[in-house]
Amino acid sequence: MVFESIGVIHTPYTENSRVPYQPMDAQTEAGKKFFVDVDAKYTEALYRLDSFRYVYLLYHTDRLRRPAELTVQPPWAGGVRVGVFASRAPARPNPIGLSVVRLLSIGGYRLSTSPLDVFDKTPLLDIKPYIQDLDSKRDANFGWVDELPDRDHLMLHIKGVPHAC
Amino acid sequence: MVFESIGVIHTPYTENSRVPYQPMDAQTEAGKKFFVDVDAKYTEALYRLDSFRYVYLLYHTDRLRRPAELTVQPPWAGGVRVGVFASRAPARPNPIGLSVVRLLSIGGYRLSTSPLDVFDKTPLLDIKPYIQDLDSKRDANFGWVDELPDRDHLMLHIKGVPHAC
Repeated sequence: MVFESIGVIHTPYTENSRVPYQPMDAQTEAGKKFFVDVDAKYTEALYRLDSFRYVYLLYHTDRLRRPAELTVQPPWAGGVRVGVFASRAPARPNPIGLSVVRLLSIGGYRLSTSPLDVFDKTPLLDIKPYIQDLDSKRDANFGWVDELPDRDHLMLHIKGVPHAC
Repeated sequence: MVFESIGVIHTPYTENSRVPYQPMDAQTEAGKKFFVDVDAKYTEALYRLDSFRYVYLLYHTDRLRRPAELTVQPPWAGGVRVGVFASRAPARPNPIGLSVVRLLSIGGYRLSTSPLDVFDKTPLLDIKPYIQDLDSKRDANFGWVDELPDRDHLMLHIKGVPHAC
């Protein structure tokens, strides 16, 4: 199956810099720009998207040259090994990334968003509205993360909260 | 960019039946089977996924023959027209579907899940864990759905709650 880029995600994380493992909090990244430009021909397809507080972005994690492995050791998880489908590792059998971002504003074909954990110029695949009752699962858990001995510290990494490491 | 199926989603909704617009609630679909078979070669990639209560499924909505439009009128939304990226319409520039499902059990390469709103035999693209603090946005809103005059009734459709229509 063949998919095409419908736009480009822009972040401060160029190829020579480091991309955080998870989206950093807005305060940490204050002054940095995170925005998405959809191709101009899709401008009309954004109509009324500005009524949503959060949106899903789907994108192609195309900068990863390493092959997908069946199991991974998330870098912040203290050596625990889990299946790649039990992780959010970007190197996956299909390199499709998914982020929930806060939608700050839309002007023309440009969306300003909260911080994202992807490389600058990542190709965009889709935008979907994040709808409270469909997508916000209040009884969701933390899976294997909850079982880690260093759980509270690791949660800071997951949430992108700065701390003395 | 080329992606490959990594498994198959199974639902009671065959091509000759109707697929609900949103996942039906579990009580309505009691006795019906919703499950995902990943390709056997990916069984190991599911390791520890069973520690999560919810997972994301990404899939290829390949049964749709109609072309994607820039704007759509969601069937339950009383004639309102919105951009396709402000909707969860399955016919999109890239026909990638996204669902949050409750994970009931995993046995080998088979995942049993809560009801899904996709056709039987839909090709699976990815599975990701749904992680409380990353994905459950308690302050998410309902976007333009909130502004519809018939909002409370429409929410029953969105939630897949049965009612006299």
